[in-house]
Amino acid sequence: MDRIKRNERLAAISRILTASPNRIFTLSHFTEMFGAAKSTVSEDLSILADTFAQFDLGRLTTVAGAAGGVIYRAIPSKQRAVAALEALSDKLSMPGRLLPGDFLYTNDITCDSDLCEMMGEILACRYYDKAPDFVLTMETKGIPVAMMTARMLNAPLVIARRDTKAYEGSAVKINYISGETGDRIETMALARRAVTPGQKALIIDDFMKGGGTLRGMHDLMKEFDVEVVGTGVIIATAEPRKKRVDGVTALMVLSQVNREAGSAVVKPSEWIYHLN
Amino acid sequence: MDRIKRNERLAAISRILTASPNRIFTLSHFTEMFGAAKSTVSEDLSILADTFAQFDLGRLTTVAGAAGGVIYRAIPSKQRAVAALEALSDKLSMPGRLLPGDFLYTNDITCDSDLCEMMGEILACRYYDKAPDFVLTMETKGIPVAMMTARMLNAPLVIARRDTKAYEGSAVKINYISGETGDRIETMALARRAVTPGQKALIIDDFMKGGGTLRGMHDLMKEFDVEVVGTGVIIATAEPRKKRVDGVTALMVLSQVNREAGSAVVKPSEWIYHLN
Repeated sequence: MDRIKRNERLAAISRILTASPNRIFTLSHFTEMFGAAKSTVSEDLSILADTFAQFDLGRLTTVAGAAGGVIYRAIPSKQRAVAALEALSDKLSMPGRLLPGDFLYTNDITCDSDLCEMMGEILACRYYDKAPDFVLTMETKGIPVAMMTARMLNAPLVIARRDTKAYEGSAVKINYISGETGDRIETMALARRAVTPGQKALIIDDFMKGGGTLRGMHDLMKEFDVEVVGTGVIIATAEPRKKRVDGVTALMVLSQVNREAGSAVVKPSEWIYHLN
Repeated sequence: MDRIKRNERLAAISRILTASPNRIFTLSHFTEMFGAAKSTVSEDLSILADTFAQFDLGRLTTVAGAAGGVIYRAIPSKQRAVAALEALSDKLSMPGRLLPGDFLYTNDITCDSDLCEMMGEILACRYYDKAPDFVLTMETKGIPVAMMTARMLNAPLVIARRDTKAYEGSAVKINYISGETGDRIETMALARRAVTPGQKALIIDDFMKGGGTLRGMHDLMKEFDVEVVGTGVIIATAEPRKKRVDGVTALMVLSQVNREAGSAVVKPSEWIYHLN
């Protein structure tokens, strides 16, 4: 093999690190791959870190010590996060999106891989220090964004089901209260072997009104002796102000429902403007 | 701004192209971003293409003409695809995975973002030339791999539901036959505004036994005047040999169910060994 030039190493390392966010790569991984010295690869990584910072492409962090190496996190700048969520909010505020029951049509948003990736990047920002062992969501609409959040955190996704399916083996099933007035009792189930007691969960869902489904997921985790380290949603409604779960991170807030125009006002949450 | 060096341009372009697979980026996109000449960026892209080829990191293709530019596709080499699917097959063939009803426990596979990305890369390979407008799946277990396939193809995901939810607006609902003996009638539904007549769909699901659910998705697309350009699944069972849908691309095939050991034999499909 010809000697590999810095240009080529940088192109390859950039692809490899960004394809596996939040994973530690040792320096040896790259010294062996390219037949290069540690000091050479260190310099490569330093150029890469500067370039990513300059072009708002995420952050490269060096982890010291024996188990050390380099880790890539797809953390957007505040400017990029705000711009993306403001554009998305405008789209969600368009007339015609409001459906009967004051629900918003969001399927085109929750199923777009680019948008889910962006939302996953922003949601993940809040939970790197919590190091969740997995991301939990409830079928169906939260799955894509939960998947992308899990990808950013380098954690597996776990999906709670509405009912137990034959092909998931033995399961734990709970009842939870949904609906604004707390008048509907529903069930959710999770395969026993899906999680391990003592793990840490990050809960992600698409929409929160009263917070009943999120409450159900918290209760389900209790059954598994799993600690919930955070809860995030794409959209939370401003009303009711009192939710069944506290401390939920919402990317956007929905208010001012206008049934005649078939629209509501959606805005990025306040905390987005204070990202750093 | 200081002049940006080739090193830095390559690191940034690598990140930008690989984060948006199957999308055309014009040369001007990069000449403006870096304040560089077209010939310079062309050289950058040529180095990048060679590097990706050398390290099995996907393919960079130049598209000529007025709407031309460069496009990145995460196409793995045959060696990498075979190795990944053989490792996955071994894992799926382990004792204890077989559940009552001859179903295989696959939740840990279908919910792993790295594995779904890999499977999405391989499934997408077969459909670049068909240019589907969207990827259709049926809730729940196929969603992550369908999402990753959609991401590789730069197409939105569309999810058919088991029943119509209030928050999706008016919907088209069909009945379909599931179960090996064709004895169960189930329903699937899709929001009217989810797709547009005349579009092309790629159908992706996690598992095919008789093919009833896939048949249902084909029938659903007929209702929307949408052409199905392909059908792909993670695992197909060897038996029954006759499926309700023809020409399905399976990544792996399940055979030799051993109920006592609680296992089955899973192997990569034959076509994986002929990828190019």
